[in-house]
Amino acid sequence: MDFKIEHKDTKSNARTGVITTDRGEIKTPIFMPVGTIGSVKGVHQQELKYDIKAQIILGNTYHLYLRPGLDVLRQAGGLHKFINWDRPILTDSGGYQVFSLSANRKLSDKGAAFSSHIDGSKHLFTPENVIDTERIIGSDIMMVLDECTPYPCDYEYARKSLNLTHGWLKRAFAHYKNTDNLYGYSQALFPIVQGSVFKDLRKESAEVIASYNAEGNAIGGLSVGEPVEDMYEMLEVVNNILPKDKPRYLMGVGTPANILEGIALGTDMFDCVMPTRNGRNGMLFTKNGIINIKNQKWKTDFSPIEEDGASYVDTQYSKAYLRHLFAVNERLGAQIASMHNLAFYLWLVTEARQKIETGEFSSWKNIMVTKLMSRM
Amino acid sequence: MDFKIEHKDTKSNARTGVITTDRGEIKTPIFMPVGTIGSVKGVHQQELKYDIKAQIILGNTYHLYLRPGLDVLRQAGGLHKFINWDRPILTDSGGYQVFSLSANRKLSDKGAAFSSHIDGSKHLFTPENVIDTERIIGSDIMMVLDECTPYPCDYEYARKSLNLTHGWLKRAFAHYKNTDNLYGYSQALFPIVQGSVFKDLRKESAEVIASYNAEGNAIGGLSVGEPVEDMYEMLEVVNNILPKDKPRYLMGVGTPANILEGIALGTDMFDCVMPTRNGRNGMLFTKNGIINIKNQKWKTDFSPIEEDGASYVDTQYSKAYLRHLFAVNERLGAQIASMHNLAFYLWLVTEARQKIETGEFSSWKNIMVTKLMSRM
Repeated sequence: MDFKIEHKDTKSNARTGVITTDRGEIKTPIFMPVGTIGSVKGVHQQELKYDIKAQIILGNTYHLYLRPGLDVLRQAGGLHKFINWDRPILTDSGGYQVFSLSANRKLSDKGAAFSSHIDGSKHLFTPENVIDTERIIGSDIMMVLDECTPYPCDYEYARKSLNLTHGWLKRAFAHYKNTDNLYGYSQALFPIVQGSVFKDLRKESAEVIASYNAEGNAIGGLSVGEPVEDMYEMLEVVNNILPKDKPRYLMGVGTPANILEGIALGTDMFDCVMPTRNGRNGMLFTKNGIINIKNQKWKTDFSPIEEDGASYVDTQYSKAYLRHLFAVNERLGAQIASMHNLAFYLWLVTEARQKIETGEFSSWKNIMVTKLMSRM
Repeated sequence: MDFKIEHKDTKSNARTGVITTDRGEIKTPIFMPVGTIGSVKGVHQQELKYDIKAQIILGNTYHLYLRPGLDVLRQAGGLHKFINWDRPILTDSGGYQVFSLSANRKLSDKGAAFSSHIDGSKHLFTPENVIDTERIIGSDIMMVLDECTPYPCDYEYARKSLNLTHGWLKRAFAHYKNTDNLYGYSQALFPIVQGSVFKDLRKESAEVIASYNAEGNAIGGLSVGEPVEDMYEMLEVVNNILPKDKPRYLMGVGTPANILEGIALGTDMFDCVMPTRNGRNGMLFTKNGIINIKNQKWKTDFSPIEEDGASYVDTQYSKAYLRHLFAVNERLGAQIASMHNLAFYLWLVTEARQKIETGEFSSWKNIMVTKLMSRM
């Protein structure tokens, strides 16, 4: 994996770049749609590629490990072939889902023991076997096993957790170096900065992570309930330490405004379920603010969903029609809203990229963050 | 509306033709996907048009009358504009849903009084106001209000019901002739043959219906639980009487085999929720038989859904992947299965058309009806 920085904003830490993987280029800053269990919910792969223009998508190791399971994935020749997606895929380590979904989880130096949220079966994730799983999945960018601390989280717990995460990290990289990809496409491994909302822990973690000189670095444990100012503060602390010449990935974040602020703070990669999850609930993100399409006010608004929207659905369907689909619980409603939101997120990062290139990023961003979060 | 017969099969009553409406041509025999409440479930309008190649779709008057309601539809300029579909639309009369969905229904000479299945509100459908509703919807082919008799149904009830249906029919046509379309596209009105499984009633009804010399004629009250032989027998009786030079529409039917037999008996138009409803449950219709995609046997079958299938999804996704999507309850599974089945149904009627043209229909049909209903 290669990363080349192309432009740097003079008024912020924003930058543009190109990540090159064996499965193609990713122009940063980038948003990555989440394909949890091998599918970005409600969206066809062709739509993802040609309409939404996703350059890379996510897969969740926890979910894929449980279903379809490693046997099927191995026989399929990896996740790309299984789902028919030939662009890059990034996989998380499964750690987050172990903590948020599974029962009876027990963390130890050894790893994370848990019971499946589906059938209660017992499993153990270790720093090593998670790499093995990601090798079988065949993702282009793999994540190390870490503990994503909850919020709030006391200092004592965050301290202990960070030690655990750093211990796991060492073993993950050792195992990474002793293993190889299975399908002929090289796989990068990103370490993850943790440390909750404590500056000194975040600093320490960023330094440990930086010392690995990995092909890219991730920041986890943010956007888990803490005030947004804390998130930006931690991001600033961390990005100051992480290598400038490697992509920085803020995991699981966030709103359109979060993403623009993250870019301003020098972050290159983002993922979030928000465009699809909120889309399924009738929330649309647009250039001019947020639309709750279920609202009565759209009942006879026959104008396009978004006049100059990024997806073909924006001009194909009217607000009144989309509102109707939600009112009668037709699944096409969720499909349209998901496509709209994903295309909007991809439009947003592409636009940010152009604004960085032309030197207009900071002023544009300041106008946009207010506009994007207003209610229409 | 115009109907031109192009080819007649010599060994059966099958024929090919072209229906011309103000919104374009429909090549018969044709299958019409059901867009119940303004959406063919799980399928985008563009997919319906360019991938599935639907020439005409259905809308349900009962559902559309309740939601979005006539005000919205009128302001939208009709259903075509509301949902953005520029090819023909056929609407049923709502009678069937009044009997199958609503509560407290009371039939009288006046019409069908019922309570909405959504909020219990009281409504009355009359032969006249159903036409008015269909005028507001703006469908290219409208249906008259009728009573669809249940099965089983005793002779006495069927007799009484038929009188009611014929009484309503007279008023419907009188009102039809006294009203005009609202959007500049002419609208045909089809009368409906009823009579349950009683030959004499079906005969009588077909004669009454034929006497209207309508632009097309429909056969209702079949495929409601009666043995399939009864359905074919009634269809034969009725099609012998209905004008040969007008399209014959068998309502709500059916399996791929039912459709081929229906074509052999001289039927030109079909609609059914089966491709989408069964698709959502994991049942796929293919050239070689029925696939229950949830079955364990497809778990590691990485071959295309259907090698030479009619939809792009057939080669885009594998059986193993589609099975996985159903196993993890991902909505993309239902979307893929719905598209596959609809494209298959459209392929089937197109293929039947070609076989009629080349004189191979009867022998092909006999092979296909067995093959289509076998389990893979």
